[in-house]
Amino acid sequence: MSEVVFRTATAADLPAIVALLDDDDLSRGREDASLPLDPRYLAAFEAITADPNQMQVVADLDGRVVGTMQLSFLAGIAFRGGWRGQIEAVRIASDLRGQGLGQQMIEWAVDRCRERGCRMAQLTSKLDRVDAHRFYERMGWKKSHAGFKLQLEQA
Amino acid sequence: MSEVVFRTATAADLPAIVALLDDDDLSRGREDASLPLDPRYLAAFEAITADPNQMQVVADLDGRVVGTMQLSFLAGIAFRGGWRGQIEAVRIASDLRGQGLGQQMIEWAVDRCRERGCRMAQLTSKLDRVDAHRFYERMGWKKSHAGFKLQLEQA
Repeated sequence: MSEVVFRTATAADLPAIVALLDDDDLSRGREDASLPLDPRYLAAFEAITADPNQMQVVADLDGRVVGTMQLSFLAGIAFRGGWRGQIEAVRIASDLRGQGLGQQMIEWAVDRCRERGCRMAQLTSKLDRVDAHRFYERMGWKKSHAGFKLQLEQA
Repeated sequence: MSEVVFRTATAADLPAIVALLDDDDLSRGREDASLPLDPRYLAAFEAITADPNQMQVVADLDGRVVGTMQLSFLAGIAFRGGWRGQIEAVRIASDLRGQGLGQQMIEWAVDRCRERGCRMAQLTSKLDRVDAHRFYERMGWKKSHAGFKLQLEQA
């Protein structure tokens, strides 16, 4: 297949990003990919874009958005003032999974973390995504932590 | 004991924050609490303080810094543009553990997340901190995720 390009998302990519987030067995129904998009998606996108320490990333294959992730660079006092690179909301288009695209995207993210001088990269993955866990472990990530979430009622 | 006050840290609190981070069996030797502090600590503190979406918090008991945590508010496209509140680097002074101070601090953090309209709060905890896991679960947090870290060599 053609070479995939990883780049910062533009607002024009947003419907495709939401569709990718929606195309996932474990979070089905959580998103609303119908057009026009819920304005909260654009508000969140603009907050990410306005933050110099964050990037919404897309994997672009011949003009088609085939993957996405959010990258956040977080200062921290621990680890002698070490920065962390955090990866969230990783998705690859269902028809292109298992072809190495996810690995390329995570490696691209880790390169950005190195460029920013991060001491570590971090992410969480749902406990039942065992294939994803093997995928990260094959790339050298250590499953050293438990990830806790507290759902808050909407205002 | 007197009422503990949770507040945004000032630069004057930084040596006490680093000492708290250092006072931990699972991360002993990772920090350097000697004075004058490694300037990277101040640089990280200033980066956190300059970011309107982050707070370095201290628990102040009659002028003594007895606890600390970092709070980050992160926009995200997932969950219909839902914000997340993220808690990192939670510490309570060793002589004051088991007295409810940690619970008060986490509840204070969750209140800040609600104020900011967050859809969820999240944190990770080392797999071997089983007491901490029970602590979060008692407060209603769900251990739904695995936390992966990738150490990056220092530049």
